[in-house]
Amino acid sequence: MIAIVKDSATPEQLSHFVRWIEDRGFKTNVSKGENETIVGIIGDTTQIDPFLLESMDIIDQVRRVSEPFKKANRKFHPEDTVVDCGHGVLVGGGNFQVIAGPCSVEGKGLIDIARAVKRSGATMLRGGAYKPRTSPYSYQGMGEKGLDILLEASAELDMPVVTEVMDPRDVQLFLDKGIDVMQIGARNAQNFPLLREVGKTRTPVLLKRGMSETIDELLMGAEYIMSEGNPNVILCERGIRTFETRTRNTFDVNAIPVVHHLSHLPIIGDPSHSTGYTRYVRPAAYAATAAGADGLEIEVHDNPSQAWSDGAQALTPAQFDDAMRRIRVIREAICQDLDEGGVEA
Amino acid sequence: MIAIVKDSATPEQLSHFVRWIEDRGFKTNVSKGENETIVGIIGDTTQIDPFLLESMDIIDQVRRVSEPFKKANRKFHPEDTVVDCGHGVLVGGGNFQVIAGPCSVEGKGLIDIARAVKRSGATMLRGGAYKPRTSPYSYQGMGEKGLDILLEASAELDMPVVTEVMDPRDVQLFLDKGIDVMQIGARNAQNFPLLREVGKTRTPVLLKRGMSETIDELLMGAEYIMSEGNPNVILCERGIRTFETRTRNTFDVNAIPVVHHLSHLPIIGDPSHSTGYTRYVRPAAYAATAAGADGLEIEVHDNPSQAWSDGAQALTPAQFDDAMRRIRVIREAICQDLDEGGVEA
Amino acid sequence: MIAIVKDSATPEQLSHFVRWIEDRGFKTNVSKGENETIVGIIGDTTQIDPFLLESMDIIDQVRRVSEPFKKANRKFHPEDTVVDCGHGVLVGGGNFQVIAGPCSVEGKGLIDIARAVKRSGATMLRGGAYKPRTSPYSYQGMGEKGLDILLEASAELDMPVVTEVMDPRDVQLFLDKGIDVMQIGARNAQNFPLLREVGKTRTPVLLKRGMSETIDELLMGAEYIMSEGNPNVILCERGIRTFETRTRNTFDVNAIPVVHHLSHLPIIGDPSHSTGYTRYVRPAAYAATAAGADGLEIEVHDNPSQAWSDGAQALTPAQFDDAMRRIRVIREAICQDLDEGGVEA
Amino acid sequence: MIAIVKDSATPEQLSHFVRWIEDRGFKTNVSKGENETIVGIIGDTTQIDPFLLESMDIIDQVRRVSEPFKKANRKFHPEDTVVDCGHGVLVGGGNFQVIAGPCSVEGKGLIDIARAVKRSGATMLRGGAYKPRTSPYSYQGMGEKGLDILLEASAELDMPVVTEVMDPRDVQLFLDKGIDVMQIGARNAQNFPLLREVGKTRTPVLLKRGMSETIDELLMGAEYIMSEGNPNVILCERGIRTFETRTRNTFDVNAIPVVHHLSHLPIIGDPSHSTGYTRYVRPAAYAATAAGADGLEIEVHDNPSQAWSDGAQALTPAQFDDAMRRIRVIREAICQDLDEGGVEA
Repeated sequence: MIAIVKDSATPEQLSHFVRWIEDRGFKTNVSKGENETIVGIIGDTTQIDPFLLESMDIIDQVRRVSEPFKKANRKFHPEDTVVDCGHGVLVGGGNFQVIAGPCSVEGKGLIDIARAVKRSGATMLRGGAYKPRTSPYSYQGMGEKGLDILLEASAELDMPVVTEVMDPRDVQLFLDKGIDVMQIGARNAQNFPLLREVGKTRTPVLLKRGMSETIDELLMGAEYIMSEGNPNVILCERGIRTFETRTRNTFDVNAIPVVHHLSHLPIIGDPSHSTGYTRYVRPAAYAATAAGADGLEIEVHDNPSQAWSDGAQALTPAQFDDAMRRIRVIREAICQDLDEGGVEA
Repeated sequence: MIAIVKDSATPEQLSHFVRWIEDRGFKTNVSKGENETIVGIIGDTTQIDPFLLESMDIIDQVRRVSEPFKKANRKFHPEDTVVDCGHGVLVGGGNFQVIAGPCSVEGKGLIDIARAVKRSGATMLRGGAYKPRTSPYSYQGMGEKGLDILLEASAELDMPVVTEVMDPRDVQLFLDKGIDVMQIGARNAQNFPLLREVGKTRTPVLLKRGMSETIDELLMGAEYIMSEGNPNVILCERGIRTFETRTRNTFDVNAIPVVHHLSHLPIIGDPSHSTGYTRYVRPAAYAATAAGADGLEIEVHDNPSQAWSDGAQALTPAQFDDAMRRIRVIREAICQDLDEGGVEA
Repeated sequence: MIAIVKDSATPEQLSHFVRWIEDRGFKTNVSKGENETIVGIIGDTTQIDPFLLESMDIIDQVRRVSEPFKKANRKFHPEDTVVDCGHGVLVGGGNFQVIAGPCSVEGKGLIDIARAVKRSGATMLRGGAYKPRTSPYSYQGMGEKGLDILLEASAELDMPVVTEVMDPRDVQLFLDKGIDVMQIGARNAQNFPLLREVGKTRTPVLLKRGMSETIDELLMGAEYIMSEGNPNVILCERGIRTFETRTRNTFDVNAIPVVHHLSHLPIIGDPSHSTGYTRYVRPAAYAATAAGADGLEIEVHDNPSQAWSDGAQALTPAQFDDAMRRIRVIREAICQDLDEGGVEA
Repeated sequence: MIAIVKDSATPEQLSHFVRWIEDRGFKTNVSKGENETIVGIIGDTTQIDPFLLESMDIIDQVRRVSEPFKKANRKFHPEDTVVDCGHGVLVGGGNFQVIAGPCSVEGKGLIDIARAVKRSGATMLRGGAYKPRTSPYSYQGMGEKGLDILLEASAELDMPVVTEVMDPRDVQLFLDKGIDVMQIGARNAQNFPLLREVGKTRTPVLLKRGMSETIDELLMGAEYIMSEGNPNVILCERGIRTFETRTRNTFDVNAIPVVHHLSHLPIIGDPSHSTGYTRYVRPAAYAATAAGADGLEIEVHDNPSQAWSDGAQALTPAQFDDAMRRIRVIREAICQDLDEGGVEA
């Protein structure tokens, strides 16, 4: 962390500031420029509130120079994390997986969709049982019964299931049932008690980026989970809020290589929420794959206009099948000879 | 709600769509234009997902024409809500209150700040005991002990206290202790289980706008609380995220008259979080007052550069005292002869 | 366009409003709902300012239901526009082209970069002679001399050149010199006199999306050019401003299929400005291709750390060559059997 | 400017980088931390592209520590600039002025509005003759004839006029006519040829903030004008684009004290464009005044629903008169005893 000291500071004020910092256990390095003096603050500066320093009379600005995340930081863990989701399915480190299924679990019909997506190449099954809805008057999901339907399909098809947990009081239920991957939704991206609660387990967590989170904030969310002891975090780019109104969200495809650069955690793309319209889901899925995502999460429904929620962005099984064929070719195009100048080089 | 039907739709498709809507219990009204046909959908359309309709082949666009919030809507409740916060303090309906105190409760020193702010005209006391921090490694607040310190000051000075609750599992503790106003922070603005939990009580809730929430979303958060039975909601504009980096957030001063137009709920301004720097807190406080806010929440600390969190944006008691004198004059300027063409006319 | 009339309006007020609209040459269609009345306004409503109607006492809201762009609208021109850029190079309608070259023309060395990118498959040459720089103290480009250097390379390699025009007073010079494609930069996306000036020519225009423009606004920029008589517009997604700071801009990859849906104009992707860092350019280029872009514009420099501007986002010729090989495979993956359920279906 | 060098850099790479910087005429100061090394770059770093340095293999990040604007910077010019707008009207340095008039000049009726606003206390007259409209099909203003009508009113009432110039080719006409203040609109905030052109005159310029500009970018726009020799710049906060849709723009009231802190230039508030709806104009005008603005620009029209453009946000003369009475009280409240701890202290 560096603090820029104003030109107007007296030598006494500067040395008083330096002592104040050093008294808190940090080393300093003072560098005088023409119009300002820079104080480098060396040590574990994640504890310091930069706004606090900026409030001091003689301080002009404070800038972090090291990332506030540690456990999620590739600098300290250069190797890719590979998350074992059960049923033999690995995410990250070169393993590419496609999670598919309906937005909400609606009943026994789930198994038909599950069979179809598995046939086309999906390796994990998704479906919401607890739904965060912007209106208290909207359908809120089947709850525990939805989890059971998901798990039946999982057992029959030998596929891990991914489903959202919204309330820290529900985490134990998810563990007891044996849910393979707990999803944290965009609205809970900074729900710290919930992040801590899933962090106390060892169950893989699919952490979605908040609606207007930066990538650093997403990684700090992962840090919350990891700081409690759970290293099994998969990140998910699901679109961010921008001024564009022709899509539900803006798919930040850049986030994929950026996360790969900053962190060792895997990141997948969610082209369904990132666009909000069936007609744009496939181009976004291809883009995510081409940008090097470690997987995709795609909504599939056999009759989208009957879906209870978010049906607007679901693919039909036939559309999904077409997409999977192209996704495989794209994945191959970016992976071949990766060591001779591939995506990340 | 209206659906715009594409020009390319056949008469059969159109009548099929109309029947589909009517089968769900709505009335329709079809209006043919030159390039498109508009289907008005009449009834309680809060249940309909507009994205779902837009996914249908023949539909071009869907637009809501009525607000999705009801209990918070001024159309259905024209009278201002007045929230009784205890100790004789009312918010809304012409009652203007100032909440002041430190960002975090740091110990027994709270009482000195509390006395100072009361002397200057503050009528409610704030202080965080549970702190939502972006880093898991930052100080997380004193917890239950902090609540006790707050309540001691409250008792001694006969002032209601406002403090943040982050976890639905803590709500019962807040009730048992007798916290006067439960604050929901910006990061939990769409934490629906938490909103429901405070909605089950009758304790006043101070609901802060999410970092990139629209005003409609803020009102939907209030709707979540009110739909569970708790009508005592005070809204708070605390700044939104924009591209500006010279301030911590951008104070959306427009939100104050907009909320007054759309809703009967009171709204206060938080100039501390809305700016992030002590030097800008007073101009923002004056602006909020001038725009017609029903009150202010201001961080005050006797030694800001010692504060454990957010000290960067605290006023000293002397600065607060100066501010209060000006705030009273501004409040008077906008209130006088309000019925002859005042703020809202 | 529809106007939502408040419940509180009297029948006299409503009929007064309807007459006011009809007096301006529009037809109306009145539909009464439970809580509001909808007045459909039929005719060429691009002339009506919706904010004006909303200012009337009895009007609650006004919503456009048809797009404000006409000449750029696919509804009225279903066939893809194919832009002829000279030297036999076509953009759009299935023709995929890669524009490459340095950010700024720096001197005679341009020809070496041009030869390299041509060898790797680029079909058009770029290079800035007039540079819009945020600081008046930064290098502003070689000007007319830069155009001449570009045109020499163009002649030698038989490739069309693309270069930015910033000032309406320079358009004639660009015409006289025979520049193949005039680029309008993001900062001039709503510089209406400049758009009109290039609209008076028949030279192809590469119109970049403004930094925080919506897609509709981008299309209205195209409409300005087309309304003057120039149909040869190529759109370019070059990244939009978001809260993310790890990249220079956020590449809105969704914009590619959205533009294809709304408009008949071709759209290319600019992965260089969309990311701002060499290390992210290739993933973004692959993503743009996978999403169905009609081409790419990529900065290439033989020694990026010597470049006079924006060198930070240039590929080396070797990196560009690697990228082009993968881009061809990705393009093929999304194009094959396009009519049996391809990108847009 | 500081560059953070990666841990992985060898001592040779570091000293190579330092030499490269010093060869360009800068001094350096190297400070080794635990996980990174910081190189301070001392000298006129406005010439360096930080993205270029960040593209180098061994560089992690680059941060500016001094502002890129100089002539507009309060550090180098601590005294407030006072702009003389003619007719004895000064803006800045404690002088508070209100500019009022219709959005567009519509004809001879202007003089009636002008008389009314002068009577209520406005000191400058506004009116658009050249209008930047998002649609090429919208009314584009009266042009030169509009300027003449404005100047007639100016002469009769002895008030300076403010009107927008959009095209660098029109600047000479504005000079010849004797327009008192040339306004640069939000869409031209980064139209550098236009900024340079008005910079070559000595006529006061009212520079509006771009729709999604940061305050630093606004000040860089002023720098463009000032670098050509024109010091007479008045800044204007007119609202920025955010996700909020209930107002046309979001009035960034914080920008007023921030500009006062960073720059010596005056800044006024435009509550009309900042809100977009008549009903919110007055609260925003009071807020701007309370935050310490050096003036206001307000649209006033005697029959808003007849106005040719932006009538939706105009006050009637009666509303304007009411507002002016309150504005005077608010201005007094913040100015009194300013030296004993006022707005800026």
